[in-house]
Amino acid sequence: MRHIISAIVENRPGVLAHIAGLFAGRGFNIDSLAVGETEDPNRSRMTVVVMGDDAVLEQVRKQLGKIIDVIKVSDYSGVDYVERDLALVKVAVKPEKRGEVFEIAEVFRGKVVDIGAKHLTLEISGPEKKVEAFIDLMKPYGIREVVRTGRIAIARGE
Amino acid sequence: MRHIISAIVENRPGVLAHIAGLFAGRGFNIDSLAVGETEDPNRSRMTVVVMGDDAVLEQVRKQLGKIIDVIKVSDYSGVDYVERDLALVKVAVKPEKRGEVFEIAEVFRGKVVDIGAKHLTLEISGPEKKVEAFIDLMKPYGIREVVRTGRIAIARGE
Repeated sequence: MRHIISAIVENRPGVLAHIAGLFAGRGFNIDSLAVGETEDPNRSRMTVVVMGDDAVLEQVRKQLGKIIDVIKVSDYSGVDYVERDLALVKVAVKPEKRGEVFEIAEVFRGKVVDIGAKHLTLEISGPEKKVEAFIDLMKPYGIREVVRTGRIAIARGE
Repeated sequence: MRHIISAIVENRPGVLAHIAGLFAGRGFNIDSLAVGETEDPNRSRMTVVVMGDDAVLEQVRKQLGKIIDVIKVSDYSGVDYVERDLALVKVAVKPEKRGEVFEIAEVFRGKVVDIGAKHLTLEISGPEKKVEAFIDLMKPYGIREVVRTGRIAIARGE
């Protein structure tokens, strides 16, 4: 099953290595990971997406909670949440095909962030599925590069 | 100096722990880290933002390049690039103040992703400085939660 796990951690060298080691030790490959600043400058939030066996992942979650520098661990499974991913997609597009790409980008509320004689770079954000649908639609034009932030999540409601 | 380092890595358990260990071993704290899928399903791209001494960071970059599962390392210092960060910001806003928040969000091209009687959750993307300016403007309303993806970057041009 796909899990989104979020951990609030102290901003200290070594915390990330410790946590990444925990997942690797159990053989979990991390699909995506985002580590960013929070409202507190001393703390970061890590959002991890992993596919894995529920029981084993529950153990990892408990072990995470035992690390001193980990303040709080949340699993978004079963919670109503908003998920976002951001991608920068560089596509080989000749001027005569630009219009087609602009039309698709408009439907997805994407933004053009760079343009050249033979390429376009687009920014797209949304839930994983939306970002992936957009990338799939860009494939026929010739994708040069895709950079993604990985997923973040926030609970709905108060 | 602030560095944005990007590494294309094989999708294997342990790669992230190895790389995080390298940074931690030199005492570098990672400001932000984003690990996401690329155009090749077997490879991920890690984008790391670190502040640090140029000479020591150059050593870390070389050591990164020696890891078998690391395909390519790039440092965006001195390169013309586009940088993006995405944040979800939950703010305590009473109905009578919503209009003010909507106005600010419009200027920043932010999107409302959740709304309740006493809160709003907004999505904002852009370069680090823009995201931080938006978060600063939300502070007087009462920030409940900030989740950020961390920065990603893509070179301009072909």
